[in-house]
Amino acid sequence: MGLDVGVIGVGMIGQEHIRRLDGGPGGSRVVAVADADADRAAAVAGQLPDAKALPTGEELIASDAVDAVVVTSWGPTHEPYVLAAVAAGKPVFCEKPLATTEEACRRIVDAEVAAGRRLVQVGFNRRYDPAHRALKQALDGGAIGAPLLVHCAHRNASVPPHYTRDMSIADTAVHEIDELRWLLGREIAAVQVLTPRKSSRGGELQDPLLVLFEMSDGVLVDVEVSVNVHYGYEIRCEVSGETGTVELADPAPVTIRREGAVAGLVPGDWRERFALSYDVELREWAGTAAAAQPPQGPGAWDGYVAQVVSDAALRSLHSGGRVPVELPPRPDLYASPTS
Amino acid sequence: MGLDVGVIGVGMIGQEHIRRLDGGPGGSRVVAVADADADRAAAVAGQLPDAKALPTGEELIASDAVDAVVVTSWGPTHEPYVLAAVAAGKPVFCEKPLATTEEACRRIVDAEVAAGRRLVQVGFNRRYDPAHRALKQALDGGAIGAPLLVHCAHRNASVPPHYTRDMSIADTAVHEIDELRWLLGREIAAVQVLTPRKSSRGGELQDPLLVLFEMSDGVLVDVEVSVNVHYGYEIRCEVSGETGTVELADPAPVTIRREGAVAGLVPGDWRERFALSYDVELREWAGTAAAAQPPQGPGAWDGYVAQVVSDAALRSLHSGGRVPVELPPRPDLYASPTS
Amino acid sequence: MGLDVGVIGVGMIGQEHIRRLDGGPGGSRVVAVADADADRAAAVAGQLPDAKALPTGEELIASDAVDAVVVTSWGPTHEPYVLAAVAAGKPVFCEKPLATTEEACRRIVDAEVAAGRRLVQVGFNRRYDPAHRALKQALDGGAIGAPLLVHCAHRNASVPPHYTRDMSIADTAVHEIDELRWLLGREIAAVQVLTPRKSSRGGELQDPLLVLFEMSDGVLVDVEVSVNVHYGYEIRCEVSGETGTVELADPAPVTIRREGAVAGLVPGDWRERFALSYDVELREWAGTAAAAQPPQGPGAWDGYVAQVVSDAALRSLHSGGRVPVELPPRPDLYASPTS
Amino acid sequence: MGLDVGVIGVGMIGQEHIRRLDGGPGGSRVVAVADADADRAAAVAGQLPDAKALPTGEELIASDAVDAVVVTSWGPTHEPYVLAAVAAGKPVFCEKPLATTEEACRRIVDAEVAAGRRLVQVGFNRRYDPAHRALKQALDGGAIGAPLLVHCAHRNASVPPHYTRDMSIADTAVHEIDELRWLLGREIAAVQVLTPRKSSRGGELQDPLLVLFEMSDGVLVDVEVSVNVHYGYEIRCEVSGETGTVELADPAPVTIRREGAVAGLVPGDWRERFALSYDVELREWAGTAAAAQPPQGPGAWDGYVAQVVSDAALRSLHSGGRVPVELPPRPDLYASPTS
Repeated sequence: MGLDVGVIGVGMIGQEHIRRLDGGPGGSRVVAVADADADRAAAVAGQLPDAKALPTGEELIASDAVDAVVVTSWGPTHEPYVLAAVAAGKPVFCEKPLATTEEACRRIVDAEVAAGRRLVQVGFNRRYDPAHRALKQALDGGAIGAPLLVHCAHRNASVPPHYTRDMSIADTAVHEIDELRWLLGREIAAVQVLTPRKSSRGGELQDPLLVLFEMSDGVLVDVEVSVNVHYGYEIRCEVSGETGTVELADPAPVTIRREGAVAGLVPGDWRERFALSYDVELREWAGTAAAAQPPQGPGAWDGYVAQVVSDAALRSLHSGGRVPVELPPRPDLYASPTS
Repeated sequence: MGLDVGVIGVGMIGQEHIRRLDGGPGGSRVVAVADADADRAAAVAGQLPDAKALPTGEELIASDAVDAVVVTSWGPTHEPYVLAAVAAGKPVFCEKPLATTEEACRRIVDAEVAAGRRLVQVGFNRRYDPAHRALKQALDGGAIGAPLLVHCAHRNASVPPHYTRDMSIADTAVHEIDELRWLLGREIAAVQVLTPRKSSRGGELQDPLLVLFEMSDGVLVDVEVSVNVHYGYEIRCEVSGETGTVELADPAPVTIRREGAVAGLVPGDWRERFALSYDVELREWAGTAAAAQPPQGPGAWDGYVAQVVSDAALRSLHSGGRVPVELPPRPDLYASPTS
Repeated sequence: MGLDVGVIGVGMIGQEHIRRLDGGPGGSRVVAVADADADRAAAVAGQLPDAKALPTGEELIASDAVDAVVVTSWGPTHEPYVLAAVAAGKPVFCEKPLATTEEACRRIVDAEVAAGRRLVQVGFNRRYDPAHRALKQALDGGAIGAPLLVHCAHRNASVPPHYTRDMSIADTAVHEIDELRWLLGREIAAVQVLTPRKSSRGGELQDPLLVLFEMSDGVLVDVEVSVNVHYGYEIRCEVSGETGTVELADPAPVTIRREGAVAGLVPGDWRERFALSYDVELREWAGTAAAAQPPQGPGAWDGYVAQVVSDAALRSLHSGGRVPVELPPRPDLYASPTS
Repeated sequence: MGLDVGVIGVGMIGQEHIRRLDGGPGGSRVVAVADADADRAAAVAGQLPDAKALPTGEELIASDAVDAVVVTSWGPTHEPYVLAAVAAGKPVFCEKPLATTEEACRRIVDAEVAAGRRLVQVGFNRRYDPAHRALKQALDGGAIGAPLLVHCAHRNASVPPHYTRDMSIADTAVHEIDELRWLLGREIAAVQVLTPRKSSRGGELQDPLLVLFEMSDGVLVDVEVSVNVHYGYEIRCEVSGETGTVELADPAPVTIRREGAVAGLVPGDWRERFALSYDVELREWAGTAAAAQPPQGPGAWDGYVAQVVSDAALRSLHSGGRVPVELPPRPDLYASPTS
């Protein structure tokens, strides 16, 4: 019983995951942390009852005390940590992206295929959001017939100063890339990024974008990506099917009447909007890891495909044209419905 | 006082307008009708207290008893009737389309310019819908900052057997063409029609469509055009601006809780959804006509531009590519804010 | 054709009705006005194309130029004007209240019964609001089974300085008194007024109130009457039936996302909220008056009953207890379903 | 670390709580169960990795293996089990009601006071529902000014055959009794139960009820209690304050457009509606129990007061009149804001 977890990278998201995993569901606890900033690692470990700080992620992965690994370090470091965890035969939860290039992602897929079993889960948390699950349930249950069109919006109130143009795709729209594959059960066949009038609030950024995805069965998806909307953080999605549509409802839990308006409050950021999805994601991951089962969530193949589509979208952003997505055959290891 | 109206074409929409105009606002009444089907004209006239059936539209326009003309006949007949009304110096309300070709529309514009005063109003009723007016009011009032993106959906429960592929643009999306120009105060600079997976409910139709409009200031608009959605008739529109968005609310007047759902009823068709907009449209038109003022609503120039954009969209539908919209200079006659 | 109307009392509500009736539906026009303030009468008449100011309401009613009468003068003057119109055999639209005492209302009923035909309509405009009509339609159509409970709220942003405690019942809740009888098709059998914690915004007023109505078939209704809610004007109503409920939807035509909220705007006052209901009310009244038909709207009996119930509610407000409502037999003249 | 829990009474709600506590947050696990039906106890224990079935609740409470106790047995057995847990100095989570009579509840309060520390938490789960917490947060944050009126509805789709008239108060409305005290921070001063027209669906039951609560500061609350509404399970609450109102929003996570309606799905029962609140409730309880802290949730005093008010409401249901609520002084042990 219980799952002893090591966490590599203890910045904001790492600390959020630690909070969920230590003394958390399934008897999980955090027993080791590592960080490029050794002081930060020590400080975080010092606040946990059972954890110690280790000098490197590699040592953490190798430690006998660690049953499973969480990788929440800087993106470019994901590949070696995930490969090491796979080599060690330990379950590993890696925040998105799985790795920062198609080739790196492919190496992880190849390693897992060579190992012959799935150990990797990628942190695409939308799949765990109750509202997105209800959307998929309605769709799969036939409530609206076959899907034909999807309309999405991904809106951030603002982004930090280091946020660059390409991050609108690689960091932001990548959530929709995974969500659409999961929601519709189809691969993305082509992508085109359109550039509307620029917001004066976005500085040098090309903001907003309208990203068009063509699914392999012809379903067409438009995604508004806006990262400076000021009014709050909001995720919208409506699927139009042959006999109806299904749409995410406004998530505000209460309606307030005051000062001339009937209003629901909008979340300020993704942490507030998706807090529950992270709870469920890590609980489910810890459950399968503790039971030595393959992860039920998005795996290495999903991380790889997201990277391929994200790269195609970036090419479209740079060129302006429609870019087809080419995928190699899916390895048999990922043939199950859960990936 | 009072406005004596003649109506050419007394099919369904003609009879609806007669009902609104006879004994209607401003003391208007219907004094003459004409129809290609003389029996139908006689039958309709027979049910009105003050109307007689005339043999032809031309005679109706020429009749001294007729102060103003409503043209609700078959589209290809619009041009000669409107030209005749302009020649006669009588106010004319013409259901959309103004005429069925760019050249025909242009001849009407030229005739009006030559006459030196505006007599023509085109039946783009969206501008009279209270919800669309509230949308424009919020936008113009600065509630969401400068507009950047617009998302629309135009959904019909079903269409009659004679409905053809091109009608998705020329009869259906044409409403959005006029609405967007009015709402955003900009011309459409280019259009592209995308063809998602076809609905199995649409037979030979290419249904749905996703139509992209680029406004002259870069605002990008996507319009879902679906004409077989089965669940009802629905018009949706959300404008995304720099600091917020404004969206048409669900128009259902009551919320019903029963059988496992909290629901608003969806209108069955456009007559139900836009009944009030037609009331306002004809009341305002009759008011300006009775006062011998130029129409405040969409005029000949708007009808002409809608035709040009509609033609461009049809070329895109046929070719698949993006089609720029080329407009000649706007005649001074239409320089006022109302057209 | 046409209806020549005289209007007695040309304050705010009188002028609103004049705007709707002059050059309005059915060819109606306003041909005479009268007011206790002769200057105001002259000023209003001066702005109408066909109206002249008459010295007294009595002369206006007697004038051969006047086909039908609108009474929008001060409440205590309603009785003599309505009685005079009935005596003259002219249709009369009287703003609520029909008269200010049960006895005065009864004298009007008796006069109409003696005359043998219905000439009086009372200005209970809720019956003409599209949302209230949709509520009744759902109820009558069996959407929720037999009604059991009703929850209402009647909220004003603020009230003028001369507004007194009793006006919460006689001027405000009286709308619900008529609405409930119409909506449920039953008489009110008893009433009790409860006094919650007082709002600090209401000065000497007993505000809010919770008014309980027992219908003759046992349906129980609670009505929040709040006249200083600050945030806007709002009317709410939910009917709970055996298998579901039906509720007025939020009437905001658009949804605005800005500054951390997803919001619909609330009307500022009753004129904004019920503008359309007044249009329909006066159009339908003018139609029956022009056709010399009995009014289809609330009649003298409804005005009388509203007064009886309002008096009972005032007794409860003063005494704190439950007050049964005693009604005399309904005269045969009012046996039709429309009253 | 970890909390070893014993559960007394393993029917439906007991098994639900076991599912949440075994291998749950804070390293909690279920180590012992007991039930009046020994076979059922054995069957449930057999499905848990670490639990054994004990012959009696008393033995379970006394067992050294048990750190904390959950009481989910039949209501009349609650008192002795809770008293035994208090005597043993063990934290005890008791499903509502705390006990079935005022005297029994008082004995528990007295025992806890005598022991000098709080060990008892009562299962009023509303306090843990995110929407109810958001409602309280808005209220406490001053969003609507001081509260004046509250409107609630508690609706069950149906009730089992053994459900009796008094259970509408003691089992159903008791949730609002606790919720209102918590939400408003005031005691209930009086209660009156009104009996509207009976639903034909409720057999012998007096269904629905309208329950009026007067808070100690004059705030007036009306609660519709309907237990056969057929359409689903729904909890509604709107607080009207001096400058606005705050209301629970419709909890449906998605909006479905189909078959003529725009709809959100209604939960079928309380398990579906409040699943998340039970998760939070038991996680927070297990956290304080594991840390040997007093419970942060509703305690013995809250269970006692709920019973006193429920008894008053039953007297009103039987007599028809208004019944004041008399409470003894609150013991100092319960003076903290959390009870």
